Formats: sequence, C-alpha cells, structure tokens
Amino acid sequence: MILYSSELTTVETQYYLQHLIAPRPIALASTTNAQGNVNLSPFSFFNMFSNRPPIVIFSPVRRIRNNTTKHTLENIVEVPEVAIHIVTYDIVHQTSLASCEYPKGTDEFIKAGFTKKQASLIKPPLVAEAAAALECKVTEIKPLGNEGGAGQLVIAEVLCMHINDSLLSADKKVHQQNLGHVARLGGNWYAKISASNLFSVEKPNTQLGIGFDALPEHIRNSEVLTGNHLAQLANVNVLPEKDGSFNEQIENKYNLHSFAKSLIEEGNIHRAWQVLLCSVDPSRSLS
Amino acid sequence: MILYSSELTTVETQYYLQHLIAPRPIALASTTNAQGNVNLSPFSFFNMFSNRPPIVIFSPVRRIRNNTTKHTLENIVEVPEVAIHIVTYDIVHQTSLASCEYPKGTDEFIKAGFTKKQASLIKPPLVAEAAAALECKVTEIKPLGNEGGAGQLVIAEVLCMHINDSLLSADKKVHQQNLGHVARLGGNWYAKISASNLFSVEKPNTQLGIGFDALPEHIRNSEVLTGNHLAQLANVNVLPEKDGSFNEQIENKYNLHSFAKSLIEEGNIHRAWQVLLCSVDPSRSLS
Repeated sequence: MILYSSELTTVETQYYLQHLIAPRPIALASTTNAQGNVNLSPFSFFNMFSNRPPIVIFSPVRRIRNNTTKHTLENIVEVPEVAIHIVTYDIVHQTSLASCEYPKGTDEFIKAGFTKKQASLIKPPLVAEAAAALECKVTEIKPLGNEGGAGQLVIAEVLCMHINDSLLSADKKVHQQNLGHVARLGGNWYAKISASNLFSVEKPNTQLGIGFDALPEHIRNSEVLTGNHLAQLANVNVLPEKDGSFNEQIENKYNLHSFAKSLIEEGNIHRAWQVLLCSVDPSRSLS
Repeated sequence: MILYSSELTTVETQYYLQHLIAPRPIALASTTNAQGNVNLSPFSFFNMFSNRPPIVIFSPVRRIRNNTTKHTLENIVEVPEVAIHIVTYDIVHQTSLASCEYPKGTDEFIKAGFTKKQASLIKPPLVAEAAAALECKVTEIKPLGNEGGAGQLVIAEVLCMHINDSLLSADKKVHQQNLGHVARLGGNWYAKISASNLFSVEKPNTQLGIGFDALPEHIRNSEVLTGNHLAQLANVNVLPEKDGSFNEQIENKYNLHSFAKSLIEEGNIHRAWQVLLCSVDPSRSLS
C-alpha cells in the first residue's frame, strides 16, 4: 500500500507514522515557569542527535484537536531548562498518568505520585524515582509548523547526567540489560526492553565486510540461508580459505546449508564458512 | 553517580547517552548524489517530530575519530531527498553490514544484498526487502556543531509511505505486533520488538485521572502496591464509590492489598478498587 501525505488527514498521518517509526524512547520532561510552577509530561518524539555538543531533542506537538500548545513548551519559553528522565518499566504507569492534560498550574509530580529532588545545575526538579536523568539547557525552540499536529523542536544541551548506582558496574559501565527501558509505538502500545529481547550485533565499522557481491554464487543463491544469515557471512573482512583439516569433521549426510545455518545462528561464523566451503570441494562426494 | 558533560570525553558522552536514550528506532537511509551514485546507511539518531507537516529527523554525526562527514550527508547536500526504511528483525544483519564505511561510490545495496525498487516521488531507490519505507524531501540540514561527534540534523518531510500489505488488516490498520521492529541501544546492543514484549496502556488523555493526591491515605501508603499499581488506581476519573453488593465476594482472610495488586495486574481496576474500599469498611472485621 502507498499512502500519499497530501491525501491523509493529520490523524491518519499520526496513526501510520507512530506505528512505523518505533519503538520511540520516552523523555519524561520536568520544567518550571517564571513563577516556579512545575510541569511534568512525557514525550516520545525524542532522541539524542549529537555527542559533542551533547544534544537531545524532543517535540511537544501542537494539539491536533484545537491547535493549542503544551504547558511544557510554555514553561520552556519562560525558563529554557528541562530535566529529562529515562522511562523504565517501574515508572511507566506513573509516567502515563503524568500525560493527563491537567489544568495549567497543576503539579504532575503530585498527581503522578513522584518525589521531587533538587537538580544540580537547573531549576526544574528531578524525579527521584527515575533510574537516570539528564539536566539540560534549551538552546533553541524550532517550530516545524503552526497548524494542529505541528511539532515544536526543543533542542537541548545535556549539562549533566544522573545514573542510579545500581545500574553501574564497579568500573562505571552501564548494565544495559538491567535498565528496563520502555518505549512507545502506535496507538496504546508500549514495548518493554529486557534481557530476553536484547541481542548483540558486532559493529563492522573498523573492518569492511566483504559484502554479498563477494559471496560465492552457490551461497548467495541459497534457498536455505536468509538475508540475515548471508549478511553475517558477508561481514567477514576477507573471504575465508578452506582449512584442510576441517573437512574431516563434516559428514556427507548433512545438508550443508542447513548445517551452516544452524552454526550461524549459534554465532559460529568461522565454522559455518568452513562447512559452506566444503560443499564446493570436487574431491568429496556430498549427498 | 553524576557525570558533568564538561568533564567527559566525546567517546564517554556517546557511551552514556547511547545506553540511556534507548531503544532508538533505526532509519535505513537511501540517498543519491548528483551523478546518481547510491548510498545506503543506517542511523539511530532518528525519530518523527511532527504530524502536520509530517517531519522526521535523523542525524549523520561527524565522525569522532577524524571529524569527517558521512556519504549520506554529502549526497543529501547534492540531492535533498531520502528514502527511509523501517528496520525489522529480518533485515537487521544486512542493515548492520550496510553501516560498513565502504569507500565513497560503493553501492551498499550491492554490498548488503538488498534489491533496489524505484521510488514513486524521489530519485533514491527503495529497499525492496523493507517492510515499510518513507519517501522524503529534505527541507533543511542543520549542523549542531563542527567538531568530531557533532550531529547534523537532516530535517525531512514525508511525501508518501509504503507499507507491506502483509502488515495491514482489511481496514488498513497496522498489525503492530507483527511488524518486528528492531532498535538500537548502547554498545553493540539491539532490542527485538515482538508480541511477547509489547503491552498496552490506556491513554488517559480524554479524561483526567484523579491522581495520587486523591487516593485514600491507606492506599497511597501501601507497602504492597508499587507506583505502577497506584498509578493505575489513580487513573480513574472519579474516586469510585463502594458497591455494597460487592463486599459479599470478599473473604476476610485475604490480605486486601495483595488481592488488589493481583487484580490490578490482571487489568481489573474496577474490582481492585472495590476490594481496597472494603478494607476501610468499619462494619467488617478484616484480618
């Protein structure tokens, strides 16, 4: 199906984009206005965009139904600072409650049952219950439009980060698997990140993979190996040579591609390559 | 632990921000230069930021080690168009392979084994294997700095979306649970989204939750109910009244808060409230 933006309503556009561009990390943003009134609200149009300077951006969108702006944005215009909290599973329902559109002046820390903690460098208070928080100064507000549904980029520089000690190892590394992020998708959907759905892919940045075009044809045209399998084979930085002693371990009865597939799925790329190289050895009679 | 940005190296800043601001959706970006050479590369500093106009942003960061820019950015300067593909589990290893820093002019479609498909409205080709793609025109490139590690915002308007028919119901709704998104976290970590880690939270936008401050004190101070439980109770829009006939179903022997907790976890907020209201009924002698 092709959907042209010019033919969609704003609500339809939102529906499809929010289901496709996902999972989106959640910023739980604490702000204050000139009078010191506090606002707390979550935003999933959020991400990091730069390491130096360390820049994060979130977007309080103009409401589709009446084209009004959010209290968070109004506060930032008055006091260009924001404390951004990382949303984990243990605070997801409190975070959702903070997204209620309470009347201006309502303190969502109280409504959502969060505890205030003094920030180090900025006025807005921190959420004591959050596993991690970023104290930021807002360097620019950039409107992307002026109709209902128009994003308003809040471009913010991270001044300091708070990370709960329980998430850190002795050498200050982050226990990614223990963090317990949640993220937004379309409709009412959230995803919960945990050890059971994390996986690791070796970065190929330093050495170049040989690429699909360097794969022997019988491998590239395999009816057993998928794109994911072939990509792991193509990620080696030189085409492997056959290791003579290795052949002895392979029995003729194997369907070599299926055997190679199971080795790739175990992460044993080296052995998968040796198995696949066997199949083109004319001195062996493979069934 | 508090980490001040001014005291961190760029690599340290990147390390902590990428572990905390996660899971990040992945844009697999196809671009062409003036000569028509194609580039394909993934970016996880990416999200949607506006519904009308429909705006997505990604950021090809200046390389930390040598402050060079990426081919994707160079192409967009020449031809301000980009095809952004949604990365799902079945193409994650090919996507990772496309992130290799092949010499300028290398066609990563070939290296990563992807098939080109003509786009409807823009020059860069689509990845035929992707479940969904966005054809975009780039409206602005906004540098966030000029050192190594500096983000370069590519602000792009979505002209049209392609969604694989297998992901759509008869009434054109998206099967969120079948989409199979992957996302980036810190280091080499990816998350795989599937039915087993999706959950639904009712949006409280239309009606206001009563909030923690309206919870009876014995509930708010419960030693059994967590913030997540209390937030679901506080998300009702009026404080429930006790339903007299309901009391009969509750046996004295229950620890009411534990019973209420299990009901909340089953999604039965109405009954959990009735159970909790029982415990303050002086006409009953609860153990």
